[in-house]
Amino acid sequence: MSPAPLSLPREPGGHIALVGAGPGARDLLTFRAATRIAQADVIFYDRLVDPAVLDIARPQADRIYVGKAVGANAWPQDRICALIVAQARQGHRVVRLKSGDPGLFGRAEEELAAARQAGIPVEIVPGVTAASAAAAALGEPLTKRGETERVVLATATCRDGDGLPDLAACAQPGTTLALYMATRQLDAVHAALADAGWPPATRVTAVASASCDNQKTLQTTLGAMRTDIPAQGIANPAILFVTLPKPATEKAGAANPAPALLQIG
Amino acid sequence: MSPAPLSLPREPGGHIALVGAGPGARDLLTFRAATRIAQADVIFYDRLVDPAVLDIARPQADRIYVGKAVGANAWPQDRICALIVAQARQGHRVVRLKSGDPGLFGRAEEELAAARQAGIPVEIVPGVTAASAAAAALGEPLTKRGETERVVLATATCRDGDGLPDLAACAQPGTTLALYMATRQLDAVHAALADAGWPPATRVTAVASASCDNQKTLQTTLGAMRTDIPAQGIANPAILFVTLPKPATEKAGAANPAPALLQIG
Repeated sequence: MSPAPLSLPREPGGHIALVGAGPGARDLLTFRAATRIAQADVIFYDRLVDPAVLDIARPQADRIYVGKAVGANAWPQDRICALIVAQARQGHRVVRLKSGDPGLFGRAEEELAAARQAGIPVEIVPGVTAASAAAAALGEPLTKRGETERVVLATATCRDGDGLPDLAACAQPGTTLALYMATRQLDAVHAALADAGWPPATRVTAVASASCDNQKTLQTTLGAMRTDIPAQGIANPAILFVTLPKPATEKAGAANPAPALLQIG
Repeated sequence: MSPAPLSLPREPGGHIALVGAGPGARDLLTFRAATRIAQADVIFYDRLVDPAVLDIARPQADRIYVGKAVGANAWPQDRICALIVAQARQGHRVVRLKSGDPGLFGRAEEELAAARQAGIPVEIVPGVTAASAAAAALGEPLTKRGETERVVLATATCRDGDGLPDLAACAQPGTTLALYMATRQLDAVHAALADAGWPPATRVTAVASASCDNQKTLQTTLGAMRTDIPAQGIANPAILFVTLPKPATEKAGAANPAPALLQIG
């Protein structure tokens, strides 16, 4: 049973689009995202969105910053929900611009629910997620046949903090772990994977600000990452990849088994 | 130790870009992908790529179809690798256009290795992966705080067929499983998840041809999917989502716990 729509008046034409801005570089925006931004009456945008993306918008469009630093919730989620709904009720085309893909770790469910409860049309415009851009920055795919045939996308900033211990269960041979916003959780990541039996030499790569001008990449190991990552200045927004390959005996016919081909920028 | 570069002559300026075409809809292409296509001398493209995307290319650019149907490898991977390298050696700007994100289930590692062994500059242009587009089509995010805080991307078409049993280990509460190309493996998916203790009522959603004109979506259950999915004509290319939520008692403050809000197109 859904809550009844609120009884406030609503102008026709209002619409909410939850738009993925991609990983950071302006040219990794999709055409659909650019179209929604160009049509918008009002744009609510996050901290990680490249401000140059907003240049696509009409001059008279309102640009409202609702970004959050980790641990500093200047804009509570329910306030953002109330604002996007209030703007759409006035007949405005509202863009809620989010980094990466809005469906991944973006709290889109709360904004979708608010729009639907108010009877306002809402859509998701998917975007390139940071893990894809980070792998591209390393010049490596996320999956390799016969070696890593599964990707686990997880975040180190779960509300209840219980996301990381579950990593041990997912840490099966044949997996690439892609951990979002993980540079403050290195001890917990290390503990979960070491407890799961992965050795210190397990390959770890890290990419900060994937696709942006200040992108940094690093190749290290599970054993060394807790010192290497801070020492090299790799900080959030960052992706941590942990490569958990199948045993070499199971690999057959792989054209590129050597991790030494990894390019580090 | 890398193999020595082949001793064939090489013209300057050759370059290979492994470019993600996104999930299908032309406007889910990124600007960077469009730029590489527009600059290309030769484009090698797959079956799932919307042919309209090729209209971006210059009229004189060569367009070479290397697509594979599942089980029908008309173009062996090593032949594709040899061709893209041969074209780049002639000084051509080569685009290898792949559906979705080239780093996910795209065999990019073999093409990257071939390019590097030949000393040819190679880059990956990331794209919107089908799982993001499929979730957008359903009007649902891939993750929801307190409910599903981890996404497992897996394919049902692994070379050695051992990808699916490993699903049981990844089938932890708090996970969205996104299974690519899974409509021919429904029995194996069902067996892996039922063995892991997931009940018949476990929510399953499926999207065929996400973002394309012929997109189809379906909401069903683990128990019913083996009949519902073929009955509704959901066939590859398709994404199967299996939602493995945390127990309700661990969910706190979720604004939208009701799966009934799912929109089915």
